Amino acid sequence: MSISANSDGNQQGNRLDPWFNTYAERAHNLRASEIRALFSVVSRPEVVSLAGGMPNLTDLPLDRLAESAKHLIATHGAQAMQYGSGQGWEVLREHITEVMSYDGILGADPDDVVITTGSQQALDLMTELFINPGDVILAEAPSYVGALGVFRARQADVVHVPMDENGLIPEALEQSIHDVRASGRTIKMLYTIPNFHNPAGVTLSLERRPRIAEICMREQVLILEDNPYGLLGFHSDPLPAIQSFSPEGVVYLGSFSKMFAPGFRIGWAYAPHAIRDKLVLASESAILSPSMVGQMAIAGYLRDYDWYSQVKAFRSMYAERAQAMLGALEEYMPDCTWTIPDGGFYTWVTLPAGLDAKSMLPRAVRAQVAYVAGTAFYYDGQGRDHMRLSFCYPTPERIREGVRRLSTVVHAEKELVEMFGAAFHKHDIDEVGPGIAPAPNAL
Amino acid sequence: MSISANSDGNQQGNRLDPWFNTYAERAHNLRASEIRALFSVVSRPEVVSLAGGMPNLTDLPLDRLAESAKHLIATHGAQAMQYGSGQGWEVLREHITEVMSYDGILGADPDDVVITTGSQQALDLMTELFINPGDVILAEAPSYVGALGVFRARQADVVHVPMDENGLIPEALEQSIHDVRASGRTIKMLYTIPNFHNPAGVTLSLERRPRIAEICMREQVLILEDNPYGLLGFHSDPLPAIQSFSPEGVVYLGSFSKMFAPGFRIGWAYAPHAIRDKLVLASESAILSPSMVGQMAIAGYLRDYDWYSQVKAFRSMYAERAQAMLGALEEYMPDCTWTIPDGGFYTWVTLPAGLDAKSMLPRAVRAQVAYVAGTAFYYDGQGRDHMRLSFCYPTPERIREGVRRLSTVVHAEKELVEMFGAAFHKHDIDEVGPGIAPAPNAL
Repeated sequence: MSISANSDGNQQGNRLDPWFNTYAERAHNLRASEIRALFSVVSRPEVVSLAGGMPNLTDLPLDRLAESAKHLIATHGAQAMQYGSGQGWEVLREHITEVMSYDGILGADPDDVVITTGSQQALDLMTELFINPGDVILAEAPSYVGALGVFRARQADVVHVPMDENGLIPEALEQSIHDVRASGRTIKMLYTIPNFHNPAGVTLSLERRPRIAEICMREQVLILEDNPYGLLGFHSDPLPAIQSFSPEGVVYLGSFSKMFAPGFRIGWAYAPHAIRDKLVLASESAILSPSMVGQMAIAGYLRDYDWYSQVKAFRSMYAERAQAMLGALEEYMPDCTWTIPDGGFYTWVTLPAGLDAKSMLPRAVRAQVAYVAGTAFYYDGQGRDHMRLSFCYPTPERIREGVRRLSTVVHAEKELVEMFGAAFHKHDIDEVGPGIAPAPNAL
Repeated sequence: MSISANSDGNQQGNRLDPWFNTYAERAHNLRASEIRALFSVVSRPEVVSLAGGMPNLTDLPLDRLAESAKHLIATHGAQAMQYGSGQGWEVLREHITEVMSYDGILGADPDDVVITTGSQQALDLMTELFINPGDVILAEAPSYVGALGVFRARQADVVHVPMDENGLIPEALEQSIHDVRASGRTIKMLYTIPNFHNPAGVTLSLERRPRIAEICMREQVLILEDNPYGLLGFHSDPLPAIQSFSPEGVVYLGSFSKMFAPGFRIGWAYAPHAIRDKLVLASESAILSPSMVGQMAIAGYLRDYDWYSQVKAFRSMYAERAQAMLGALEEYMPDCTWTIPDGGFYTWVTLPAGLDAKSMLPRAVRAQVAYVAGTAFYYDGQGRDHMRLSFCYPTPERIREGVRRLSTVVHAEKELVEMFGAAFHKHDIDEVGPGIAPAPNAL
C-alpha cells in the first residue's frame, strides 16, 4: 500500500477499507448529509416531514401521461431507446427556449442549450469547468445544500454574501468581491437562486436584478443563475431572469423537476456559446448523453399538454400549502420569525435566541416532525439558529400538525434555555460539520 | 480579467470567449473527438458507418414495451416520476445481482450496487474518487475512447499495457507496474474490458483471469472491470468476471445499453463496500439520483420479459453481422489483418505498412464509408496503422458494401504509398492530437 498511498498520509479508516490510501484528495471532501442518519426515521408515515424538497405530483394527469408513454414507445421507440446527442435532443432544446421566454429570456438560441441529468449535473459540470482547488464561489447566505456539496467536492471555497427580504444585497456583493480579492484569492463565479430561494424563501427584487448583473459584468464575475422554482410564484408570472440583463455574463440553469416532475432527471444549462461548447464536452465525458426516453417524454408533454395551465394549478396548490404553514407558524410559534415566500417550496425560520436547530433535531423527530437545520445551508458552520421548513409535499392539514408538533419542541427547548442558559445542549452537538451531500429530502 | 486569470496564462481564444481565462486547468483537457467534424457527413444515409457503437434495437418488442410503459405510469406514476434514492432503486439493484450471476458473480449483495446514468457515469465517478492529477491508470493498448476521455478530463496519465489474441498479457502487466513505479509515479488502477474488447475485439482467456486478479491484488492495484458486452458472446455464455476471482480488489461496471437499450441511460457499479459508500456520495453530488422512470422500466423488463432469450436473439443477430464483416474483409481486404471477435460489436484492423488510418478517413468518407481511426483509442498518438470497424448497426448487406468501399480506398492509398513512400500524406495529418471525447458514434 505504501507506493499508492496518497499524500496526506491519513490512516483513518484503513482497517475497514483496504483502498483507503488510494483515494484522490478530493474524495475526502465528500460528506454525507447531516440528516442522512435520520432518514429511515423521517420516512416513517407517522412523521410529518417538513424537511423534504420533493414536489407534490398528485395533480399530474397520470392516465393521460401513461397513454403518451405508450404512444412514444410504440411509434418512436427505436429512437427513444437509442443513444442521443451529448448536447441533448434538438426538439427539446427548442421547447426549452419557449419555457425560458416566461423568465424574460427572449429569442434564446436552442444551440446554446445543453440538456443534463437534472440541473444538478449542470451545477456539477460548471464547477468542474471553472474551479481549481481553492478558487472562490460567492453564494447567498444561506445557499442550496446540493450546490454547496458540489462546490466542496470540487475543492472550491465558498464565501457567503448576505441577503435580506429582497434577496442578495448588491452593496454586500460589491464588498465581498473587494474583500476576497484583497485577500489574494480568485473569484470564479457568483452562484445565486433569484426566485423563491432555497432555503431562504425570498426573491431578488426586480430593481436589484440589473444591478447584480452590472456589478458582476464590471467585476468580471460569471453568474451561475439557478432557477428551478421560477415558474412557481403564487401571485404572478416570473420576474425577468438576471440572464436577460447580461446574456454574456450568465449561465442560466433550468429544470423540469418542479414545474413537471423529477423522475426523468432532465434539466438544462443555457450558456454563452464558448461555455456551451465546453459544457457539451464535459457532459459527454460524464454521461455520454442524456436519456432520450426522458427527453422525448418531456418534449411530448410540452407539445401535447397545456403545460402552463398545469403550472398554474401547481401554483395554487403550493400557495395553499404555504398559507397553511404561515398561518400555523403565526398560531403556534409566535416566538420565532420567518420569511414570507411568494412562491417555491420553503420558508426560513429563525429560532428564539439561544436555541440550536441542529441539536434540537433528534428531539423533533422523536416528536414526529422533521426539518433541515440551518447549518446544512452554510459552508462554514453558521446557521444553528435557523431551520428550513418545506410546505411542498405534505397536505395543508399535515403541515399544520407538523408545525404544532414542532412548536412543542421549540417551547420545551426555550424553557430549558431560559432556565439553564444556552450551554445546556452543547453535548448534543456532533462534530461532523455541516452536512452538504444533497440527500434527497434536503433538495 | 487579470484577477481571475488562470495560472497557465494562456491567452488563446480570449477574443472569442470573454471567460477564457477563468476556466479551471482541467477544462483545457476536454477535447472534441477527432471524428466529430465528420459527424454530419457520416450520418447521411448514403454513408455506410462502420464507425458507430450504437446497438441494433430492431428486434426489441416495441409494442409490448409500449404497453409496459403505459402500465408503469398508470399504476406507479407517482413513484416513477418522483426523485429516488441516490444509490438507485433497491428493486432494480436486486435484479442486477441476478444479471451479474451470468458473469460468475454469485451471491452479490444488492447493497453494494450503485446505479448510474449509464456506466459512463460510473467510470467518471471512479476517476473522480481515485485520481489526483498525474496519477497513472493502466489500460489495454488500445482502450475505450470514452474511458480515455474521462481519464484525460480528470488529469490522469494512462500507460497502455499490450494485449494479444487472448487479451491483456499478464507478464506485460507486471512489467508495466514495475516500470511505472520505478519511475516514481503512482498507479491508481487497472482499467480493463475483458470481454469482446472495445476496440480490439478480443477476449481475456479464462486462464488469464485469476492471474490478472492475483497480480493486481499482490501489487495493490485496484481493477476497474468494464463489461458492457459480456452477455453478447456469439457462441457461449460469458466467462467468469475477474471480479469473481478478487471480490475486494475489483470494481465491476455493468450496463443495460447493449443487452437491452441505451435510451434509459442506466448502468451500474458493483464495488467493495467502502468504495460503494463513496460512489453513492459522489453520484448524489453529480446528479442527485438516477431516473426512477428508467430504473422502473428496466426492472419491469427484467421481471416481465424473458430477457435472457432476448439476449440470445441479439447474439445471433450480431454473430451474423460479424460473419458478414469477417467474410467481406477476407474477400476484399486480404492485404490487411484483423482480430476475430467471439462477441460484442468490433473488429480491430491493421492496415498494410505505411498506411495511415487517420489521414485516410476523409477519403473514406468521400467514398461513403466511415470508421474510427486507431489513434482515438490510445492516449499517446499511437494507432495510425489501425482502424476500428463496427458491425453492430448496419445490416449484413450494408456491412459487405461498406467493406467493399473501404477496400477501394485502402487499395488506392496502398498504391500511392508504394509509388511515393509513406511521406506523401504527411500534410493531411492535423495536429489536434488523439481525439478522445466520446462522441456518440465512437462508443
